[in-house]
Amino acid sequence: MRIALIGTGLIGASLGMALRKLDGVGDIVGYDRDPDQLETALARGALTETASSPAEAAAAADVVVLAVPVSVVEAVVHQVGPALAPGAILTDVASVKARIVDVMQAAVSPVVHVIGGHPMAGSHETGAAHAHADLFVGATYLLTPTTHTDPEAYQQLHGLVSGIGARVLAVSPQRHDLLVAVVSHLPQLAATTLMNLAASRARDEHAELLLLAAGGFRDATRVAASNPDLWLDICAENREAIVAVLDEYRERIVALRSVLAVGDESSLRRALADARAARRSLPGKETATGALVELSVAILDQPGYIAQVTTTISALGINIEDIGIDHAPEGGRGTMRLAIIGPSNAREAREALVARGYEVLERQP
Amino acid sequence: MRIALIGTGLIGASLGMALRKLDGVGDIVGYDRDPDQLETALARGALTETASSPAEAAAAADVVVLAVPVSVVEAVVHQVGPALAPGAILTDVASVKARIVDVMQAAVSPVVHVIGGHPMAGSHETGAAHAHADLFVGATYLLTPTTHTDPEAYQQLHGLVSGIGARVLAVSPQRHDLLVAVVSHLPQLAATTLMNLAASRARDEHAELLLLAAGGFRDATRVAASNPDLWLDICAENREAIVAVLDEYRERIVALRSVLAVGDESSLRRALADARAARRSLPGKETATGALVELSVAILDQPGYIAQVTTTISALGINIEDIGIDHAPEGGRGTMRLAIIGPSNAREAREALVARGYEVLERQP
Repeated sequence: MRIALIGTGLIGASLGMALRKLDGVGDIVGYDRDPDQLETALARGALTETASSPAEAAAAADVVVLAVPVSVVEAVVHQVGPALAPGAILTDVASVKARIVDVMQAAVSPVVHVIGGHPMAGSHETGAAHAHADLFVGATYLLTPTTHTDPEAYQQLHGLVSGIGARVLAVSPQRHDLLVAVVSHLPQLAATTLMNLAASRARDEHAELLLLAAGGFRDATRVAASNPDLWLDICAENREAIVAVLDEYRERIVALRSVLAVGDESSLRRALADARAARRSLPGKETATGALVELSVAILDQPGYIAQVTTTISALGINIEDIGIDHAPEGGRGTMRLAIIGPSNAREAREALVARGYEVLERQP
Repeated sequence: MRIALIGTGLIGASLGMALRKLDGVGDIVGYDRDPDQLETALARGALTETASSPAEAAAAADVVVLAVPVSVVEAVVHQVGPALAPGAILTDVASVKARIVDVMQAAVSPVVHVIGGHPMAGSHETGAAHAHADLFVGATYLLTPTTHTDPEAYQQLHGLVSGIGARVLAVSPQRHDLLVAVVSHLPQLAATTLMNLAASRARDEHAELLLLAAGGFRDATRVAASNPDLWLDICAENREAIVAVLDEYRERIVALRSVLAVGDESSLRRALADARAARRSLPGKETATGALVELSVAILDQPGYIAQVTTTISALGINIEDIGIDHAPEGGRGTMRLAIIGPSNAREAREALVARGYEVLERQP
């Protein structure tokens, strides 16, 4: 398998370093508009060769990863699109998905397989110099299959992503953008607001204020140090979802303020205790434990089933560890094999698929 | 010097372990309502002896530290008050100050010196078993002198606090409560709200949501795991300041929402960039660098000057490293010596004191 990485900064170069360790991955060709990043990525072993343009990198690649900033994806995809080989997989790593996936889909021929991606991994550092092969180990890696997604292409990309140690979660591009508005974009804007409020008080009234900034304040405002350009792009791309979640956040702040103002101790206790319980039960890097269970799902070889099966299971909060697809020799029918950790997860996944009309067999190896 | 620690949990026991290393500190007697905590503190070397009641611990102590939960201070102070020796210093470690200082002041005779304290240090762990002598090194330790505060008593407590490695900041009890509302209480309630919003979305719509919780979300919600009882007390004690700062926070969230909704990119960029700059320039554990400069402040031996001098300098965001007081032999007049790091800080402090009518000499040793 030949892989092209367009953009060899922190994420692109880390992907290269991780992918090179996998069986079946051959050459990894890279391109970056910054020659230093490209050289560094090559020197660090993230690439086997470099290209002088996105199109040159993409030509003849089986999998093309756009690891460029959100604001650049559109321009790059128009350079890459015409160069893609039939059957190639085109994916990206942008932290917003709905429009980006549409843009990618519109820029390629129908025989190219577009599957959006978003690794929930990163670092305060940027650039190929800080890349490392373990960046994705234990991290959630979102894939956004749609009704157009080709099952074999999805299976192949799922294999690469889980091969580098990430946990794949499948969600539609639209749902992706709603989820990250809550779990990533709101925390960013809340931290920005908190930091600006404190800085303004420090400037206008209390110069000593920020000398009091202990661990809690530092944690709560850490992401406020993020790159503004990155966040301008994200806010522009996901405006609607972010505005909606900011409205809900404001309502909750107003409600908590009322609870405090009237001294409603039991409601305040409930809010604090609920948040504590939820924070303590946040899934760690190792969530599910137990033996792998294999589900065999009988499928009709028709469009959309890969997206439906994978997003149905992900929507339960359950990861799919591995996917295999066997076609019946007579064609038209086949079996999808899904590996899931733990019998209770497997049972839940099976019931959800059966409820959607699938035939599912369970096998504990 | 004989010190009494009432409450030998994480903070009390850590204070004991740190204070025992100081020259001039003799016996440290402890009391805790939980005999296990008391035994653990003794076994870990935080105490030289134990007492069977708060009053027994406090009797004959030169410095008495109430290291008990906010909700218990009032009850404990009534037991301790009558037992205090004339000239003893009574301090506490509560994270709210105005009412607590009043309560302490009201419970003791006029010849006892009450000075509120609040170490901005802690741990996710609780109890004497997790105490350590370095807990306060580099941490900000707030003292709340008032117009009643005795200069010698303040100097003595300042010496102990800076002796254990903390940076002393002097603020009035009322100002303390405004400052921590911004830098500690708002971050707590913002984290609680964010966590509850995400958990509610996960429960009602998106079971996979919390699998996406990456570093940014984890940082932003870390303090949401704090002890609800502690926070109920704090919210009750500091209600007015917290409600006011929640109102300002809500206004800023609403403003940011409008900026996003109308696509006002330049305002959004400014908000993000301001927050980034402020977060990046948060003072670290080592803020000021440079040689110590000594300021000699001529003082009239009248009530209130110790609070005025120390809070004036702290209000500039400048730490006082050391305080000494020399009385002129004829009485009535004297000199306060203040050690400050760095010539520019010293100059700023000097100008602020001169503006308040003090005579100040500067000396670089």
